[in-house]
Amino acid sequence: MSEALECSLSRPASLAQVPRWDHEADIVVVGFGAAGACAALEAARSGARVLLIETAAGSGGTSALSGGEIYLGGGGGTPIQRAAGFNDDTEDLYRYLVMAGGPNADTAKARLYADNSLKHFEWLTAQGIEYKNSYIAERCIEPATDDCLIWSGSEEAWPFAAQARPAPRGHCPKFVGMGGGRYVMDVLARRVLEAGVEVHYNTRAMALVTDGRAVHGLVARSEGTSRYLRARRAVLLCAGGFVMNRAMVKQHVPLLLRSQFPLGTVDDGSGILLGASAGGAPINMGEGFATIPWYPPGSLVKGIFVNGNGQRFINEDCYHGRVSNYILRQTGERIWLLEDHATFALGDMQALAKMEIGAAAETWEEVERELQLPQGALTETVSFYNRNAAHGVDPLFHKAAKWLKPLDEPPFVALDCRIDHCFYASFTLGGLDTLPGGEVLDAERNVVAGLFAAGRTACGLPRWGEGYSSGMSLADASFFGREAGRRAAQTQR
Amino acid sequence: MSEALECSLSRPASLAQVPRWDHEADIVVVGFGAAGACAALEAARSGARVLLIETAAGSGGTSALSGGEIYLGGGGGTPIQRAAGFNDDTEDLYRYLVMAGGPNADTAKARLYADNSLKHFEWLTAQGIEYKNSYIAERCIEPATDDCLIWSGSEEAWPFAAQARPAPRGHCPKFVGMGGGRYVMDVLARRVLEAGVEVHYNTRAMALVTDGRAVHGLVARSEGTSRYLRARRAVLLCAGGFVMNRAMVKQHVPLLLRSQFPLGTVDDGSGILLGASAGGAPINMGEGFATIPWYPPGSLVKGIFVNGNGQRFINEDCYHGRVSNYILRQTGERIWLLEDHATFALGDMQALAKMEIGAAAETWEEVERELQLPQGALTETVSFYNRNAAHGVDPLFHKAAKWLKPLDEPPFVALDCRIDHCFYASFTLGGLDTLPGGEVLDAERNVVAGLFAAGRTACGLPRWGEGYSSGMSLADASFFGREAGRRAAQTQR
Repeated sequence: MSEALECSLSRPASLAQVPRWDHEADIVVVGFGAAGACAALEAARSGARVLLIETAAGSGGTSALSGGEIYLGGGGGTPIQRAAGFNDDTEDLYRYLVMAGGPNADTAKARLYADNSLKHFEWLTAQGIEYKNSYIAERCIEPATDDCLIWSGSEEAWPFAAQARPAPRGHCPKFVGMGGGRYVMDVLARRVLEAGVEVHYNTRAMALVTDGRAVHGLVARSEGTSRYLRARRAVLLCAGGFVMNRAMVKQHVPLLLRSQFPLGTVDDGSGILLGASAGGAPINMGEGFATIPWYPPGSLVKGIFVNGNGQRFINEDCYHGRVSNYILRQTGERIWLLEDHATFALGDMQALAKMEIGAAAETWEEVERELQLPQGALTETVSFYNRNAAHGVDPLFHKAAKWLKPLDEPPFVALDCRIDHCFYASFTLGGLDTLPGGEVLDAERNVVAGLFAAGRTACGLPRWGEGYSSGMSLADASFFGREAGRRAAQTQR
Repeated sequence: MSEALECSLSRPASLAQVPRWDHEADIVVVGFGAAGACAALEAARSGARVLLIETAAGSGGTSALSGGEIYLGGGGGTPIQRAAGFNDDTEDLYRYLVMAGGPNADTAKARLYADNSLKHFEWLTAQGIEYKNSYIAERCIEPATDDCLIWSGSEEAWPFAAQARPAPRGHCPKFVGMGGGRYVMDVLARRVLEAGVEVHYNTRAMALVTDGRAVHGLVARSEGTSRYLRARRAVLLCAGGFVMNRAMVKQHVPLLLRSQFPLGTVDDGSGILLGASAGGAPINMGEGFATIPWYPPGSLVKGIFVNGNGQRFINEDCYHGRVSNYILRQTGERIWLLEDHATFALGDMQALAKMEIGAAAETWEEVERELQLPQGALTETVSFYNRNAAHGVDPLFHKAAKWLKPLDEPPFVALDCRIDHCFYASFTLGGLDTLPGGEVLDAERNVVAGLFAAGRTACGLPRWGEGYSSGMSLADASFFGREAGRRAAQTQR
């Protein structure tokens, strides 16, 4: 800081030393992505005066980089799920969310979200986000069309399908082309401005202001000077994760350093650090997500992944991110996707991530030699797979029967899926521990007075690389952003 | 707190509100394990007045639960290494430490330790810790005798041996039987008392005292009342890790919940939480260590581990903890160690962890059936291994030739190594970010004034489950405890 006050992201400014308040509001929201927008909106509609600051020159944050899909369902199904023939059950949604959350799942958040997901869909449409009443049955990452409902997770795959009745839950907005997240954020941003939220762009949060007991505001930086922003009720941190802060990634989840495509805008960890500076507890900081979007076409799912030892390691019909999380854990760097003429050549290669051909030959023996694998390492894996696939079973990894077919039609191909050579997008999954209402908790799970967090700054529903499904981040950010906004507005000092 | 002051492990007490100082010292050390003992000792010898508080009724902490081995070498070798024929090189030690530290290795600490490891050995013996001049070439966890030098890591195994010339570096004290850690701690504790350190047992650190800029002391709890301890120069946190705090384990490294044998005494995370409350940055909190001590006898190393899909996954000649870290990452719960008559029956089963026999038969086909594995899943793995072992190679996992032998002498056995059914000891590897001198750093790597940490409370040399080697924790705790003690004593306010 150029001015006198000694403070930083890691050290709050002392209330007693704040020289003046440049701006005052009931609620100060940090970050204008989906969480911040929804939080600001609900807080303003609850009657609070809201100031929203954003580091960038415009709204959107990392939410605007996404496909805009939101994970929704339960309660008999959204209108779009029902029209497609899926009467999705709340308990199935709940069980899936808990499984997807992994060993540290937040069951309270999963419960609240499952019970209110349908109402949240209504709220989203009421804001003006349009959804076409359509369903895509084929495997895709996000539609290139304006269609809506897709399978965006591992719902139909082992072990999820065995414990939660599957339904497609990825709801993509009515927006032609990739990148519907920009559209979603534009709609939300208009509502935020209409609701009377004061927005300061090009304004960066530098430090919280506390009196040692509660958060009272923050120090921001704008046009080269420090601004002191008073939050009469609460500060709401919605400033994204830390995937763009490579030093933090190294400290907490070094595995993600292997991905050269961190998915973020600001995401410098400042939200999490600010929260920690006031006593908030970052949790789950070692978890991350990385994915190679290796399908469509869906026929590729009939291929098999093998590691550098020629071993299979996953049922290939699960979500691309789950496959990728397993890829990340394999010993060594070499990873191939094996396909035959029927599964590869018939489908156009439309993958976002174009994989190079590592080997192609008329026999698997030749492929094995081309890949310089020891004799038998690959061919025995393939013949074991083919033998069982011919009987419609995958006894080791439980890929569903509809994806099973012996890979026996030459030519054969091994697609090179090395992390260092392909597009693996990544982001972090750790953040501040919060109650479902967004209240930030310290390590002993006591509430830090005057401080809320939502979106990737908090540790929400998406918190396990193996279980992540597309649409969960926006679902979490928008829903728990709203919760936090409402709660913060009700805060009494 | 029963008294007025509002504070906790997560929220420091404000200096202005401290009602009185019950005790004053230059340095207040929290925790009487190896790190705390060495820190207190060096601080006292540097002329500082030192107060050491310990939650338990006596000295030792988790260090006293260990085998007492310390990872030492380099510089041509310790006298014991040299007598055994190993002129260990400093650069080999350095490279091994960096590899062992994994993707987030602290190269500055590795450098300092490698350069000074021999001197540290001299210091340890000067304190009165005795070492017998002897070497055990066979695989062991810790000697049941009073012998000294053992292979305590993966030095001879792929990929370590290829990058750092191997040497045995585990130095066990001259103490008959398991549990030399108690002996080491008794020696150190005597020196601590002789040095005039004031020790308060049954005294628990409850909160730090800060003025928002620096740490000035702490609030402790003893005999039911709060005690205010002033640290004129610094507080030194040496209070262990958090493996006994199962809520924290769930939040940060849930994988370790599978181990039912957390290795700790207090280790409730309080040291890390206290440091974080003053702005210190916990890092690497997602890393942990778990191990099944599955050898001796060394002949078992000639067997192979397979997962629930009948696949091998590791060169079995590396350190038991590295094997176990890979076990933890396998899909599913079933894990077996396969042995034949020559490798199993000839050696007495002396493993600390007695594994039950999951299957035993005259052919591998029968073993496969008994384990209810799909036809070929196990037998093809074994025949691939045997075929190559007969030629003295392990093309996939690179087990060294001396451990390779076809498993072809019936009867055959599959030892059940499931985590839930065996002794897997575990501890955490995350802690406060520190400089090599022990200064606690905030998330922006600025020093938190008046605060030091060492041992498991800090994130030191041992910070990667895949690379951990026995003796690294005591090496780190004792060496960097000393560093922190000296630095803290020099602190000027």
